[in-house]
Amino acid sequence: MPEATPTKKSVVLSGITAGRTAVCTVGREGKGLHYRGYSIEDLAERATYDEVAYLLLYGELPRRGELDAFRRRVRAHRALPGALRDALEKLPAASHPMDVMRTGCSMLGCLEPEPVSDGGIPGSPEAQVGLAERLLGAFPGMVMYWHQFHATGRRIEVQTDEQTIAGQFLHLLHGRPPAPLLERALDASFILYAEHEFNASTFTCRLIASTASDYYSAITGGIGALRGALHGGANEGAMKLIERFATPDEAERGILDALARKEKLLGFGHPVYTVIDPRSRFAKAFARRIAQEARDAADAGRDAGDARLFPVAERIEAVMMREKRMFPNVDFYTAVVYRLMGIPTPMFTPLFVIPRTAGWSAHVFEQRADNKIIRPAADYAGPEPRAYVAVEQRV
Amino acid sequence: MPEATPTKKSVVLSGITAGRTAVCTVGREGKGLHYRGYSIEDLAERATYDEVAYLLLYGELPRRGELDAFRRRVRAHRALPGALRDALEKLPAASHPMDVMRTGCSMLGCLEPEPVSDGGIPGSPEAQVGLAERLLGAFPGMVMYWHQFHATGRRIEVQTDEQTIAGQFLHLLHGRPPAPLLERALDASFILYAEHEFNASTFTCRLIASTASDYYSAITGGIGALRGALHGGANEGAMKLIERFATPDEAERGILDALARKEKLLGFGHPVYTVIDPRSRFAKAFARRIAQEARDAADAGRDAGDARLFPVAERIEAVMMREKRMFPNVDFYTAVVYRLMGIPTPMFTPLFVIPRTAGWSAHVFEQRADNKIIRPAADYAGPEPRAYVAVEQRV
Repeated sequence: MPEATPTKKSVVLSGITAGRTAVCTVGREGKGLHYRGYSIEDLAERATYDEVAYLLLYGELPRRGELDAFRRRVRAHRALPGALRDALEKLPAASHPMDVMRTGCSMLGCLEPEPVSDGGIPGSPEAQVGLAERLLGAFPGMVMYWHQFHATGRRIEVQTDEQTIAGQFLHLLHGRPPAPLLERALDASFILYAEHEFNASTFTCRLIASTASDYYSAITGGIGALRGALHGGANEGAMKLIERFATPDEAERGILDALARKEKLLGFGHPVYTVIDPRSRFAKAFARRIAQEARDAADAGRDAGDARLFPVAERIEAVMMREKRMFPNVDFYTAVVYRLMGIPTPMFTPLFVIPRTAGWSAHVFEQRADNKIIRPAADYAGPEPRAYVAVEQRV
Repeated sequence: MPEATPTKKSVVLSGITAGRTAVCTVGREGKGLHYRGYSIEDLAERATYDEVAYLLLYGELPRRGELDAFRRRVRAHRALPGALRDALEKLPAASHPMDVMRTGCSMLGCLEPEPVSDGGIPGSPEAQVGLAERLLGAFPGMVMYWHQFHATGRRIEVQTDEQTIAGQFLHLLHGRPPAPLLERALDASFILYAEHEFNASTFTCRLIASTASDYYSAITGGIGALRGALHGGANEGAMKLIERFATPDEAERGILDALARKEKLLGFGHPVYTVIDPRSRFAKAFARRIAQEARDAADAGRDAGDARLFPVAERIEAVMMREKRMFPNVDFYTAVVYRLMGIPTPMFTPLFVIPRTAGWSAHVFEQRADNKIIRPAADYAGPEPRAYVAVEQRV
């Protein structure tokens, strides 16, 4: 079935097909998102992230026994090699955690390299899916080991009893089992972030895989691409925007000022969606619930969280829709959710890496299964042929 | 001026424009290669690699004073931070050196991060070109420090007095100043490998840069893409092919057999060139000279190098042209040159990374100067929308 692909002039290769996929459709009628045929609405409301990761990696939703076995394998992959822990300790405390993840992923590719065929080509189906499970298990501990070593001086134990990847991350961050609502909210955000067709980081993974390079090279490249402020880094930018304002009225004035200055505001609009980002309302619903719980806690004299964030975010959304007809993308309310959970802003994009590893991996496997090298052309706009002049004669 | 881009069905996005460049034209009439208007023939015969690197990074060939200052800056960047040396020691001896370079480059991005603007966007013109000079200075020492530590147990001093990047690499590999012919041959191969328009690794760098990510993420991604056997890894594959045969006659029989089995032979043909790879003859000329010198040395009772390689390679070239009308690409005779210099095969692709860093960097700067995010579309070939079923009901 042909895909009605929206095209945007502000996006290079917009609407140009760069391959075939069975993993995902995005932006049909400007608003839809399906993972292997399942709507994001169904998945966000009814599934857990580990089911979604299994769906992406293996092609079908798991039966009970398959799911339990998958969970056990991922949990068993939480330990980090000593050489990796040493290197994480030596990375600066001031590093961006995305640089830490990029480096840690690449180093794991040295310590536990992907097997290759006699012809030197990687891509055994059994081995590669095992590497994806390894990264899903290892990534929360990788970034948290580095974080806690530099924040507290402690060498934390990264093997917890938490059942979910979201629970594992929150446990390692806060040093205790997470509240159920927070674990469920993080797990749901992982579902929303798990996959998004040929976005820039996924296309990076496929491009690297197309040269017959190894799995770790592809994922390391994906992390590097996701890091940018125009991609995964947008959730950090959205948070910085929301945090500028102490009240909804202040936000209203501030956004109008920013629009008058033609400032680029992160967290709004999307390269593919034109009508709505279908993931936003799930992020917003969790933000509302957690904010409500924070207010209830404050009323009961407990820690209030940051009660101003949600009303400020809602006002920004209203002003952007009224003034620019722009809708919030998934990053906008996800930033509110993450902040209300006490997650430091520089950890927002790593929290995008962890779930997206499933989508990236599915695309690497797919690229390998029917591989052609990706090699576009360029428009030349440089000097015409000119004669070489020896260095002493140059003026 | 419009570029006549050859298109190939075996290449995704072949002939599709993914951006504008002033750095390079490749494959005009199926055979040409120019860096910023200068022909590869002029540059390979008359220039040195550091002039070419300067040309790529700064847009014009350097005047004498500019060249001398550039060389001094690159030489001053040879030292490696202690944390990086520690990590290199902890990487396994059996790692692929491309994985080592990918990890080392990423780690350097943690230790010496690219500065960002107030808005969190990297890309100051002065800072970014300094990072390119840093990598050109540091890369030979990075891979050789790891290599020598594991091969000999020694922690080598990576700051030599060698004037060129090629000399630096050979000195660190062999532990002594290189013979002038070998230094010149390696330098010339660096010119041939310095740049090649929108090939897969360069396009990876541009794609990562298009998200407003940092310089190190882009180069780390480029290393990962170059690693693949269908890209930079082809020079290792070409060497393994040549080394199968002890004599030209054996090569003739072996290649005919391989062709009958429809084996894919690395080192021949090219995704863009259709007539000839203009770089091949320079690589071949150096291979011939070094092979001749090796035979002369053998006649004089000195170490013979590997005298059989060049005649075997020539016969393979002749058979491939006669049987398949296929021409050797740059990797084929470069592999012979590198082996005759005593360079281990796994170091061949790292020797592609070092010079290509100049081309990659020029493209990152260009992408940033007129940036739009790169985001292609996909053809969907997966399940149509289907209803979610709870885990206990799945059959």
